[in-house]
Amino acid sequence: MSLHKTELFVPAITPFAADLSLDTARLVRHGRWLLENGADGLAPFGTTSEANSLGLAERQAALDALLEGGIVPDLLMPGTGCCAIPDTVSLTAQAVAAGCRGVLMLPPFFYKGISDDGLFAAYSEVIERVGDGALRVYLYHIPQMSGVGIPLPVIERLLAAYPRTIAGLKDSSGKWDYSRSVIEAFPTIAVYSASESLIPVNVATGGAGCISASSNVNPAGIRALIGALGTAAQDACAEHVASIRTIFEGVPLIPAIKAAVASLHGDPGYARTRPPFAPLDPAHDAAIKKAVALAGEAAIS
Amino acid sequence: MSLHKTELFVPAITPFAADLSLDTARLVRHGRWLLENGADGLAPFGTTSEANSLGLAERQAALDALLEGGIVPDLLMPGTGCCAIPDTVSLTAQAVAAGCRGVLMLPPFFYKGISDDGLFAAYSEVIERVGDGALRVYLYHIPQMSGVGIPLPVIERLLAAYPRTIAGLKDSSGKWDYSRSVIEAFPTIAVYSASESLIPVNVATGGAGCISASSNVNPAGIRALIGALGTAAQDACAEHVASIRTIFEGVPLIPAIKAAVASLHGDPGYARTRPPFAPLDPAHDAAIKKAVALAGEAAIS
Repeated sequence: MSLHKTELFVPAITPFAADLSLDTARLVRHGRWLLENGADGLAPFGTTSEANSLGLAERQAALDALLEGGIVPDLLMPGTGCCAIPDTVSLTAQAVAAGCRGVLMLPPFFYKGISDDGLFAAYSEVIERVGDGALRVYLYHIPQMSGVGIPLPVIERLLAAYPRTIAGLKDSSGKWDYSRSVIEAFPTIAVYSASESLIPVNVATGGAGCISASSNVNPAGIRALIGALGTAAQDACAEHVASIRTIFEGVPLIPAIKAAVASLHGDPGYARTRPPFAPLDPAHDAAIKKAVALAGEAAIS
Repeated sequence: MSLHKTELFVPAITPFAADLSLDTARLVRHGRWLLENGADGLAPFGTTSEANSLGLAERQAALDALLEGGIVPDLLMPGTGCCAIPDTVSLTAQAVAAGCRGVLMLPPFFYKGISDDGLFAAYSEVIERVGDGALRVYLYHIPQMSGVGIPLPVIERLLAAYPRTIAGLKDSSGKWDYSRSVIEAFPTIAVYSASESLIPVNVATGGAGCISASSNVNPAGIRALIGALGTAAQDACAEHVASIRTIFEGVPLIPAIKAAVASLHGDPGYARTRPPFAPLDPAHDAAIKKAVALAGEAAIS
């Protein structure tokens, strides 16, 4: 039995205008659509959001736009982890001041081979500088991109030092064993998987749900799976979300998610990516159409 | 016979005050000392400089401080490559406007598995947005940290598109074969090695010298080696620089370089590091003292 409510937070994609500038109107529109279609909240400015391709000022403007667009701060868990502590502090302080539910925080990720002491010091320095009892940090473990994972002894030290602040962890490593060991060692923090296919085992083990790239396209299907957990409908729902997720696993993920969002909103503007990504090769259009059609079935049912 | 002058550019360390804020006074002092002791120029805000631990505003303030401190812009090759293109453009435009000799530019380094098209597009986008014929880009190849190397076909495309802008490359991979292949394929661009021990082979192959962490401590010795190339003194100079470099290869590099700079200036303030690094363990003090003493011999001779 999990100590946590099962939740779907969506790492919302970041739309760009034709000149590749930030497109806050489309950002807000998609965010509202997600919340109306099954998402419990948004985790904007994560990996799927191309957050690390946004300048510091753009990330600040994008959070402001979501809030001004009427998204309730308690439904927001923005990504705020940068390479440099001062930038992480700026973004985190902005989120806390706005009343966001929490922040999803990458460790500093340029330098590799970082010691546990160094990683603890980096998180600690940010928490101390923000200096706000309302801060809730969700640690972001994605070693295949960041090159810097979050070892369990570091989580243990952070929890001992900041028991109210360290609220959870997102595991994007794709290695279930890591998630399981974190949930078992620290059952009071909310552990999210990066794939909706893991929701049943995540919840059965004591986790808190998922924050998944493909939930940009299939929030209703994933919501249905969460609702069906432990019922006769669970297997059919699990098969449905897996059928969509599998399509995205066969193509360049972020450009494909953006192409699918463009298709589901009937608005090609959503498909634009920033370098180093390129928009999806049209050769994959049929696969994307199929994913969107499958997601549409869940939305209707 | 190289088409290039043999140069030593120093990736100057970035000093921090007791509260870990940027210490521009010590930065300028060390920069001037380096130029007075054998450096041809400075390549501040690189890996050794903890550049990716500096916030965007700090990097801008640090370059301003060097210029206001009287360092001639033509002797400066600041690092400007960030994850996000808008940040890279800001820093690069500042350097060009100031008249810097060039910029050392990391590729966007959060996302891994980037295509050649995506990497070309990222550099191209920065060059086009800066839009200044005076820009000179030195590509920064350090895959063990960035996770994103610079393949030869990308260099070829960049040179074809921007023949005057693409001026060189720093190879910090530690793999001489990569340097050699770049020098042989593109002899007109200036290729710098990251180790002074490679200066003889770099220059013999057609390279342009070195940009090395340990040149923060031993600029005079490395200058002496460059002066001795092809003379009877070359081997003795090469042995001397290697004896110092070897010491740094056995300890955590960046904290050790900062500890050594603190020792050589008799100013412990230089030793401070930002998380995720910690100051050097005092167990290494004797090794650092020895490196500084060896470097001092070069400075006297």
